[in-house]
Amino acid sequence: MAKPSDELNRNMNESSALDFIRVILSHTSHPGNIGATARAMKTMGLNALHLVNPKHFPHEEATARAANAVNVLQRAIICDSLDKALNNTVFSAAITARSRELSHEVFDARQGAKELLRYANQQQPVALLFGRENSGLTSEEVSKCQIIIQIPANPEYPSLNLANAVQIMTYELRMELTEKSTQKDDNDKLASFNDVEAFYAHLEKLMSASEFLDPEKPKLLMQRIRRLFARTRLEKEELQILRGILSALGKRW
Amino acid sequence: MAKPSDELNRNMNESSALDFIRVILSHTSHPGNIGATARAMKTMGLNALHLVNPKHFPHEEATARAANAVNVLQRAIICDSLDKALNNTVFSAAITARSRELSHEVFDARQGAKELLRYANQQQPVALLFGRENSGLTSEEVSKCQIIIQIPANPEYPSLNLANAVQIMTYELRMELTEKSTQKDDNDKLASFNDVEAFYAHLEKLMSASEFLDPEKPKLLMQRIRRLFARTRLEKEELQILRGILSALGKRW
Repeated sequence: MAKPSDELNRNMNESSALDFIRVILSHTSHPGNIGATARAMKTMGLNALHLVNPKHFPHEEATARAANAVNVLQRAIICDSLDKALNNTVFSAAITARSRELSHEVFDARQGAKELLRYANQQQPVALLFGRENSGLTSEEVSKCQIIIQIPANPEYPSLNLANAVQIMTYELRMELTEKSTQKDDNDKLASFNDVEAFYAHLEKLMSASEFLDPEKPKLLMQRIRRLFARTRLEKEELQILRGILSALGKRW
Repeated sequence: MAKPSDELNRNMNESSALDFIRVILSHTSHPGNIGATARAMKTMGLNALHLVNPKHFPHEEATARAANAVNVLQRAIICDSLDKALNNTVFSAAITARSRELSHEVFDARQGAKELLRYANQQQPVALLFGRENSGLTSEEVSKCQIIIQIPANPEYPSLNLANAVQIMTYELRMELTEKSTQKDDNDKLASFNDVEAFYAHLEKLMSASEFLDPEKPKLLMQRIRRLFARTRLEKEELQILRGILSALGKRW
């Protein structure tokens, strides 16, 4: 098995997507959690920490818990409002433990990381917003974000430590970056939208000619077929094979 | 989007796989890390904590950091050797930050969680072993495990806090359980091996009849097609559609 770190190293050199992701801690009570957050961030390659009205900062406990990530603490930006911490971001996610009766779209940690990287990969600044240790984010704070991310947890005790929630989110960002980088390699081989559509048209024509498809209601069957092939992410060569089969079988229709 | 917690609730009732996964901390120096580990475990639904020669335990700092997971601390089993902590397990994973020159197979956190659940899902006890805060696991400790799990991290600073490493691993176990449960639902719909083979035979016959397939070397093309459909994990209904198309187009061959 290839070592994950090889893959990551390569990716980290290629892309600085993680530099465009900031972590915002709002109204943190315990300075130890700020230090532990800095450490969690740095272990996954993130550096930009914003603190909205921290109760105690700087603080020796923050420094102690940061271990060798004190540089992240030193560079932390202290803001007196969430608006200032969100300055220049194009997209932000509110991390919450509870479901909320809000119109926001809710993602789990893995899907949420994908959404954030969609922008960060294009070098557009995005933010992850974490609330108070005891009461989480206010509705007003959540309303300034575009999506909600819920970290899957034990419903009987979903109360993750703040820095541990940061650890999971930053881990998922790093994992997703690795997979993105792998996908990118594959992308060269993938069939284009136009070619796939031409295949569907070819197939539909033959299905009609052979009377397998009811011309009155062709939609449903074609939708099922689209769903099947959408899952495969057809490669160029595979598409050529499928078109070849259709051409061969279609000679007599 | 379905709420992740609904999915998990259902799954947790169905299966107690997490009850068969123990976390072992070897020679922990800081009692706060033991408490934080208990909390990390409980937030993801794990309860069995084993401590090999902890430096200070029980300790008020452990209790404080455990928050509402003190029951996990109270149930923790203290062992004077790793062998005792591994008692009755059928499989165990050593969590390490560094690569090692050992013959162990190395998995990342996600793949490692899958391996552990392979046994835990069959109600066989497994263990995750974490070492000292500063020096990690000894080679002798690693040698008592079947696999190594490396958590992907920043190569320049891969030093995760102990409880944060536990948090990521237990999170991955919970995520994998959810996905397993989703897969199980889908499995009812999946086409059987025999039906898929019958489809390949049908397709190969028509490809030969229409002279698309070179009968001298049919293998390579059929392998490509198998690879394509293997990725989709064909459902029963989809297979019926594909067979229907082949029957319709095949009428004239």
